[in-house]
Amino acid sequence: MSDISIARSIKLKHINTIAEILGIDADDLELFGKHKAKLPLHLIDEDKIRKSKLILVTAMSPTPAGEGKTTVSIGLAQGMNKIGKKTTVVLREPSLGPVFGMKGGAAGGGYSQVLPMEDINMHFTGDFAAIEKANNLLAALIDNNIQSKSRTLGIDPRTVIWKRVMDMNDRSLRNIVTGLGGMGQGIPSEAGFNITAASEIMAILCLATDLMDLKKRIGNIFIGFTDTKRPVYARELNAQGAMAALLKDAIKPNLVQTIEGTPAIIHGGPFANIAQGTNSVIATKMGLSLSEFVVTEAGFGADLGAEKFLDIKCQSAGLSPNAVVVVATVRALKFHGGASLKTINDTNPAAVKAGLINLDKHIENIKKFGLPPIVAINKFPTDTEEEIAIVKNRCAELGVSVAVADIWAKGGEGGKELAEIVAREAENQTEKFKPIYDWNLPIKEKVEKVAREIYGADHVEYTSDAEKSLTQVEKLGLEHLPICIAKTQYSFSDDPAKLGRPTGFHITVREIEIAAGAGFIVLTTGSIMRMPGLPSLPSSEAIDIDADGNISGLF
Amino acid sequence: MSDISIARSIKLKHINTIAEILGIDADDLELFGKHKAKLPLHLIDEDKIRKSKLILVTAMSPTPAGEGKTTVSIGLAQGMNKIGKKTTVVLREPSLGPVFGMKGGAAGGGYSQVLPMEDINMHFTGDFAAIEKANNLLAALIDNNIQSKSRTLGIDPRTVIWKRVMDMNDRSLRNIVTGLGGMGQGIPSEAGFNITAASEIMAILCLATDLMDLKKRIGNIFIGFTDTKRPVYARELNAQGAMAALLKDAIKPNLVQTIEGTPAIIHGGPFANIAQGTNSVIATKMGLSLSEFVVTEAGFGADLGAEKFLDIKCQSAGLSPNAVVVVATVRALKFHGGASLKTINDTNPAAVKAGLINLDKHIENIKKFGLPPIVAINKFPTDTEEEIAIVKNRCAELGVSVAVADIWAKGGEGGKELAEIVAREAENQTEKFKPIYDWNLPIKEKVEKVAREIYGADHVEYTSDAEKSLTQVEKLGLEHLPICIAKTQYSFSDDPAKLGRPTGFHITVREIEIAAGAGFIVLTTGSIMRMPGLPSLPSSEAIDIDADGNISGLF
Repeated sequence: MSDISIARSIKLKHINTIAEILGIDADDLELFGKHKAKLPLHLIDEDKIRKSKLILVTAMSPTPAGEGKTTVSIGLAQGMNKIGKKTTVVLREPSLGPVFGMKGGAAGGGYSQVLPMEDINMHFTGDFAAIEKANNLLAALIDNNIQSKSRTLGIDPRTVIWKRVMDMNDRSLRNIVTGLGGMGQGIPSEAGFNITAASEIMAILCLATDLMDLKKRIGNIFIGFTDTKRPVYARELNAQGAMAALLKDAIKPNLVQTIEGTPAIIHGGPFANIAQGTNSVIATKMGLSLSEFVVTEAGFGADLGAEKFLDIKCQSAGLSPNAVVVVATVRALKFHGGASLKTINDTNPAAVKAGLINLDKHIENIKKFGLPPIVAINKFPTDTEEEIAIVKNRCAELGVSVAVADIWAKGGEGGKELAEIVAREAENQTEKFKPIYDWNLPIKEKVEKVAREIYGADHVEYTSDAEKSLTQVEKLGLEHLPICIAKTQYSFSDDPAKLGRPTGFHITVREIEIAAGAGFIVLTTGSIMRMPGLPSLPSSEAIDIDADGNISGLF
Repeated sequence: MSDISIARSIKLKHINTIAEILGIDADDLELFGKHKAKLPLHLIDEDKIRKSKLILVTAMSPTPAGEGKTTVSIGLAQGMNKIGKKTTVVLREPSLGPVFGMKGGAAGGGYSQVLPMEDINMHFTGDFAAIEKANNLLAALIDNNIQSKSRTLGIDPRTVIWKRVMDMNDRSLRNIVTGLGGMGQGIPSEAGFNITAASEIMAILCLATDLMDLKKRIGNIFIGFTDTKRPVYARELNAQGAMAALLKDAIKPNLVQTIEGTPAIIHGGPFANIAQGTNSVIATKMGLSLSEFVVTEAGFGADLGAEKFLDIKCQSAGLSPNAVVVVATVRALKFHGGASLKTINDTNPAAVKAGLINLDKHIENIKKFGLPPIVAINKFPTDTEEEIAIVKNRCAELGVSVAVADIWAKGGEGGKELAEIVAREAENQTEKFKPIYDWNLPIKEKVEKVAREIYGADHVEYTSDAEKSLTQVEKLGLEHLPICIAKTQYSFSDDPAKLGRPTGFHITVREIEIAAGAGFIVLTTGSIMRMPGLPSLPSSEAIDIDADGNISGLF
């Protein structure tokens, strides 16, 4: 059965019923139809947040086959509720663009999905559209200021780093020239579009604690320089008021349900390479205010998503997680153990064994944060008992808890064993969460810490462009910001071909970008795709809708 | 008091209460918060539509000062309800882009507004965002097909007429070059963005009768030609299913309320020059299904908006209006009578008298459609008794009903006199509505009819480009489509400087565009702005939001 046919077979509860589980007054809900609602920020309660447990779900280094981290997060939350732990799953909103490309939907799978999946995968409650609009209003204001004679700030168009965004896989918009057509039509400029998930506004919305913090961060966006080399910020265009007004609803997290009626809060969706890769601070705090446990997820592998979750988001928001689930699959272990993508469905205990080094390193890393790692083996039909035993034995050797999660096929029932372990570890946490680096260190020292301790690199090199940008960061007084390293998700190194647990390598910082509004410095190691393209056969071709509004072809 | 402060002073009713007035079961509503809801299409009832009365509000040729047609529509609907006629006002959704430019909001004014005005002026229920996404998915699919080697249709990129859209005043996007950056980044092409209201998807959504009709129309969109000069349609890219899926909620009309709690249905917002300029067919039919009277509005003056409403929309949807309100203002009459924009607030009976020729011609035109015109004088504080008497006397001479509408200051109470007249005329309609032209005539004959009978032109000329396009229209077998003439709104002629009632002129068709999906042929006479720019001081700079989410600076 396909995800959408499983989803369609479920009779959804009215969202009021889900809100009741969380003790939310029906009058506090802003309904979006019968199965979606926005939650007002006044429901956030710092006292309750301190008492609740935060579980992060991350993964070993991903493979092109997919490890099902979202599915495990949903299944685990369902399992937690089955064993009597009041749990909300808190997730990112999927991006629309990839839905029409190769990826299909991104709302979990099988019997561990968030619903209504068609809505969540498409416009949902309009958050991405609002972010897009706010982002593009700033672009229009910048170009308009450059065009204007009477009120110009003297921005040098060649220095403008602000890009437009569109939530669409449209490669033709990556590199464009705007402002053609003559004097009244703007200044000809090199420009481009990123996908909306890559917008700094997305990163800002997901780190903001409230509307005023959002507005302040928007005002701090660094745009470029004037002709006299003075830095220019969004606040100088008086952009932050209108942009925050555009985001007045987008800042509120969205309540939906899983296939088993577990409350799910879905809000924000920044990239996990050039941004923090996890749902909004507001959503996490909302979940912790409304239930005993929150299960949440960070993008890509633990070296990227979890590191940023812990070093950027948790530090920024004052959150302290209680346990970390590392999702592994037998298939991914085989891949890291040398099997090709084509053969990862074939039984291959030797490859599983060889691939364990990747998982080992992620486990070590989680421990460095002072957090208890728990390995979740996301079960696939092709896994053998012997292969699973190999993973379990290694975890036993390392003294790390492990459970098979059969949550695609069985939902919460298949996540109960994992849930029991997670609850026990989180409730009996002994060590205290500690970040890998202190924000106050110089940028290079912060990068060094992550590269050595998390990636296992020997050292870090910088291109001359990157060195120049570092000087700029210092000049702008932004050295105290946390770092956001954009790196391939497929390897601990900056080379996607180096699988397993590479050693004896260095990473090269090629470009540095200033996300002064979001409040971090992005260091790029290799080429990061910020505007995907469509494949020759786009998945949109299979998507259809019937006279009753039923959508098919989403998977 | 400003519009937003008046709006803020009103305690809105829950949208369930408004739905009750219309006899809608609460379970049929798709709530968007407490004050907005989408209405399911199954509430449309053709029997009820035939029994209800449809009132079109149009205007004399507009001036840059604004005539307040939307405000009169809302005030009239409020007045109708005050005299016991169950009335819904059905309007277009305002475009977001201009809100940040000069225009401010577009949800009526004073005590004749639709609420919540902040939401209606910003993202509302996401319809524009969905239309934008569907439009831009098609653009991405076209470019992707050109890029693809394996599944190419052989589209010649130089012939592609499909543009991207964004609901933003961003002049830099008017003329761009896309696909730069090398082989993997698309084919370098001249391209551009229009504002979302100018999208053919907007025109399609507003003419579609249901989801299947929508899908069919989308499939019929003409994209361009192959290298072998074969025409290419959207259906060849299998685009219509995914695009219609994106529009599954946008096709449903939105229920809100006026300041006096009168039901308002707001849905769709196509331009009135290059498109039909009026809300969706579905919204009009919904209004007629749910109340005795519908007051609706068409863009610009009666020569543009009303003509298209009657010849395109009413014919397409089988609607037959019962009366037409022609909004006039003393200020606009002065302008058409020779007064400058700066002096239209000064008392000037001679100019009012001289300007009546513009109103006369619009009245004549409405009669040509077999419909009773009713003149509504939208009252401004600067109007004198003498000036108003001049207008009333002329109407008496012409045997046309007239009323002063003091609806900005007094709401429905100020619209009661107009409401009494409208109800009487609509209920005692003797003639039957007849369009100006038969769709089956050749394109040139249809244009000739509108130009002579509505504009008062002597004849029509065509540029050689336009002649070439006409041959194309014939070749594509689209001669039977209705015509949509894009012309300045300021004059009956194609010269905005020719005020009043110009005679002895011809119009020149410069370009012809094929909107095969929407189902009309666009004939452009002069330059039509499809992507506005921002002024030196954008109104966005005054917009702000406070910690409680209250927006200021929208007017």
